[in-house]
Amino acid sequence: MDTMTKKQSAAQSLWQQAARTKRDSVNSLIPEAWRLPSIPSSNDQKDVTGIYIWQFLSAKEIEITETDACGIVSRTSSGAWKAREVAEAFSHRAALAHQLTNCLHEIFFDAALDEAQAQDDYFAMHKRPIGPLHGLPVSLKDQFHVKGVETTMGYVGWIGTFEGRRGSGNELIYESEMVRELRSLGAILYCKTSVPHTLMAGETVNNIIGYTWNPKNRLLSAGGSSGGEGALIGLKGSPVGFGTDIGGSIRIPAAFNGLYGLRPSAGRLPYEGMANSMDGQNSVLSVVGPLATSVASLKLLVKSLLSQEPWLHDPLVLELPWRDTSDLSQSQLTFGILKDDGVVRPHPPVIRAIDMVVDAIKRAGHQVIEWSPPSHTEGTRLVDEIYVLDGGHDVHSAFRLSGEIIADQVAAMYGKEPVAEKSASSIAAINVKKRNYQRKYLEYWNSTSGMTGTGRPVDAFIMPVAPFAAARPKLYNYYGYSTIINILDYATCTVPVTLVDKDIDKSDANYEPRNKVDEIAWRSCEITNHLSLDWLPLTINNCL
Amino acid sequence: MDTMTKKQSAAQSLWQQAARTKRDSVNSLIPEAWRLPSIPSSNDQKDVTGIYIWQFLSAKEIEITETDACGIVSRTSSGAWKAREVAEAFSHRAALAHQLTNCLHEIFFDAALDEAQAQDDYFAMHKRPIGPLHGLPVSLKDQFHVKGVETTMGYVGWIGTFEGRRGSGNELIYESEMVRELRSLGAILYCKTSVPHTLMAGETVNNIIGYTWNPKNRLLSAGGSSGGEGALIGLKGSPVGFGTDIGGSIRIPAAFNGLYGLRPSAGRLPYEGMANSMDGQNSVLSVVGPLATSVASLKLLVKSLLSQEPWLHDPLVLELPWRDTSDLSQSQLTFGILKDDGVVRPHPPVIRAIDMVVDAIKRAGHQVIEWSPPSHTEGTRLVDEIYVLDGGHDVHSAFRLSGEIIADQVAAMYGKEPVAEKSASSIAAINVKKRNYQRKYLEYWNSTSGMTGTGRPVDAFIMPVAPFAAARPKLYNYYGYSTIINILDYATCTVPVTLVDKDIDKSDANYEPRNKVDEIAWRSCEITNHLSLDWLPLTINNCL
Repeated sequence: MDTMTKKQSAAQSLWQQAARTKRDSVNSLIPEAWRLPSIPSSNDQKDVTGIYIWQFLSAKEIEITETDACGIVSRTSSGAWKAREVAEAFSHRAALAHQLTNCLHEIFFDAALDEAQAQDDYFAMHKRPIGPLHGLPVSLKDQFHVKGVETTMGYVGWIGTFEGRRGSGNELIYESEMVRELRSLGAILYCKTSVPHTLMAGETVNNIIGYTWNPKNRLLSAGGSSGGEGALIGLKGSPVGFGTDIGGSIRIPAAFNGLYGLRPSAGRLPYEGMANSMDGQNSVLSVVGPLATSVASLKLLVKSLLSQEPWLHDPLVLELPWRDTSDLSQSQLTFGILKDDGVVRPHPPVIRAIDMVVDAIKRAGHQVIEWSPPSHTEGTRLVDEIYVLDGGHDVHSAFRLSGEIIADQVAAMYGKEPVAEKSASSIAAINVKKRNYQRKYLEYWNSTSGMTGTGRPVDAFIMPVAPFAAARPKLYNYYGYSTIINILDYATCTVPVTLVDKDIDKSDANYEPRNKVDEIAWRSCEITNHLSLDWLPLTINNCL
Repeated sequence: MDTMTKKQSAAQSLWQQAARTKRDSVNSLIPEAWRLPSIPSSNDQKDVTGIYIWQFLSAKEIEITETDACGIVSRTSSGAWKAREVAEAFSHRAALAHQLTNCLHEIFFDAALDEAQAQDDYFAMHKRPIGPLHGLPVSLKDQFHVKGVETTMGYVGWIGTFEGRRGSGNELIYESEMVRELRSLGAILYCKTSVPHTLMAGETVNNIIGYTWNPKNRLLSAGGSSGGEGALIGLKGSPVGFGTDIGGSIRIPAAFNGLYGLRPSAGRLPYEGMANSMDGQNSVLSVVGPLATSVASLKLLVKSLLSQEPWLHDPLVLELPWRDTSDLSQSQLTFGILKDDGVVRPHPPVIRAIDMVVDAIKRAGHQVIEWSPPSHTEGTRLVDEIYVLDGGHDVHSAFRLSGEIIADQVAAMYGKEPVAEKSASSIAAINVKKRNYQRKYLEYWNSTSGMTGTGRPVDAFIMPVAPFAAARPKLYNYYGYSTIINILDYATCTVPVTLVDKDIDKSDANYEPRNKVDEIAWRSCEITNHLSLDWLPLTINNCL
């Protein structure tokens, strides 16, 4: 070994040791009684959902954890269930989920049980719930700051720091604005979930927890970047959680795990005081939103948060209280359908799921038209440029803190070293192109009013979240189906449709790929998992 | 003369000739009958408002042009006044105003009269107005594109082009989104008003029309950058017009000319399709808003525009219909009062105006508290950085098209040559600082709820627009009173209060200036003009 190699090797063992210590310290917070005697290999036990995980839970724990957020709140608010038993059941199931999929970054079950006990005491004394989310466990992506625990965002260099800085005075005490609001609503916070370091990948992988596996098929990705949320809620170790989305990071894990996921437009929910990558990049903003097992849960959480008037505490949130759109509920609706964006053809089960949705819409008395918008490639190229405006400066600074290796899924976008940054003029030019693209898309949307017969343009459009039901590790090579929504900044909701069926969803062996990207996506075609579709809101900027 | 000097001299005469040709061509559009036989010098005739300008108008023209926008619309909508006579009266008065103050960049009286005649024909046939602004003349800052006329934004190099580009196909036919909306509401467009080249000054000066003088005192500035609007509406050559504001450009000319001016928050009114400087710079956005002779006129225009659902055509406009805030009208209100920002002491008449406002508030049964927010200097330094993110690249490109000389008021910010641009990382860091400053200010505002006794925080705060009643040419050296609102992005309205009174508003000869900037502002103290105050909205982001 020459000197350089020795130094590198020493540094490597340092960050590996730091990562291992952190991993061990988190895992040590799982009570002995909740530890699995052994973890089956992915090949031996692909699917760990349902019956498989139930074997480790009591009947009462299963009943509680199979209930959605609305059902939980109705029971805790009436006193039928104690906040503490709910917190304990979800903590137990989350602990199991983590052992099976690597979905947690931080565990604070003890604080949650104390908080739940305090709520039970409050309820016993006042005979009323503490707030609209009384006793509801809520999981959080590891960008939220919560007192008593760290935020690493998957970076080894952030261990023991506040967002990579030491001695800021914020360590272990600072809380993000939404955390304050959730507590004030009565939510019980008990764990933070895993992310890919940088947040900029559709898979979840980092040097602290490794790879977050899909609980329905542990050979596949749980999605990313809110992949820990996806796996955890997919395994019902949480009824509802919050992720963030700058390119699909709420929708992808929601889709891959058969969940409902809401990506609101920017400025709707409070991001204030959260850790982030490229903080201050404001050409395309990351937004925060919920993932859950039912649509009603999404509504409960968003409506509750807006009741806190977040615009008084987060300067980027608009003063927009919850708006009911029930005036549309009696109308005939028209949906635009985009089955294929022309770049990468979705896999057969995704196409089949779209067809199922079209049938369902028609059966319900609504109508569909083909969605033929301006080229999505023009929009997705812009958003790809925006992700690297700083040439990777920010994320490489975070990597350099520890010298850790960079996951291939992240290096695909940011390389091994930073490159030249974009200038103010170049950024302004991109912002103008974005605005012009948004305007063109809006004009297309307006133009559909002549085709619907309702006097309104299309009420919403529907398209896949990804070209596949779930990604195979390192084979997520095309994000156009999700990133297009980030450049447009439309509110969007992911809705699960069906499961893949090996007997129906046959791959077309004679398919001629359109291009290199399409070819790789086609080759990754495997009969897999849940299917989900991206469902856009009923009116532009008006889904809430 | 050496070769270089000869070349420079030839280039100079070329741009001077182009500017003169443009100026002459605009002036030639003033009908012979409306030309003043001679223009009095500023020293001979400082004040050209009221009685002075009336001498050139008929009694009917005076009656029409002294009526505010609401009064005009009520008469045109009932058929009491013809759209054509209204258009003609304002065209005449605008022509006079231009000759006295240099307030116009484009004249299209003929198109306006044709449009007004068509509206009269429509009214005669259908017995109803064409829209809520039937027959209302509306003036536009020279950033709006209107078919049939150019947009130079004061740049000699933009003459004969579309935003500096030749052969774009947009020349003389493209219209900005708000122009389309105003036409569809029934407004009559008849002139575009002067701006400082670049738009980045509180005075209005360029090589095409020269300097826009204050009609109340033609030795003083009409303000900027919507200075043409200020002078024109101040002289009642327009009942209402639209300006833009990135640092005070609606509020300053409104204040210097005794007008009401509304600077909404970003995303409220459509900027789509307008010319701009540094287009795509999105750290602090320029916003568009009305200036008028009454508060009711501002409301009429904004409410009418929002009825057009601009969010369906401008991707930066939020889906926010007009909101009535009449629920506050019966309450006791609390106003924060900031008389002096601690950097530059306002001149005596400005202080007196604030005191008058405080008295009026108390007499009306409301209350005031001292407004002691986080340091304004911290905020105004950020916005000063944001104006030059591109190092002047954009504005110098526009200057280079013709080689024209740069006005001193503009060179003060952008120098004679561009400098290095800021990088993506630096811009992101500034955006984070801005957000943190906004949050700190919001927290201060929230904190006042303990001091009001109403259960609400302060409903609005009041401060000067500028340290003086109107600026003396080249002596506008401190913008902190207006730019602070742009970094905060609060909706704000300028309200005229009183006139300077030489007998009362004595300068303090013993004043010890606090700093160099304060000293220059103090030295410029002269008993001058209108006084106006910046009146912030009744609730944050909720003035409309």
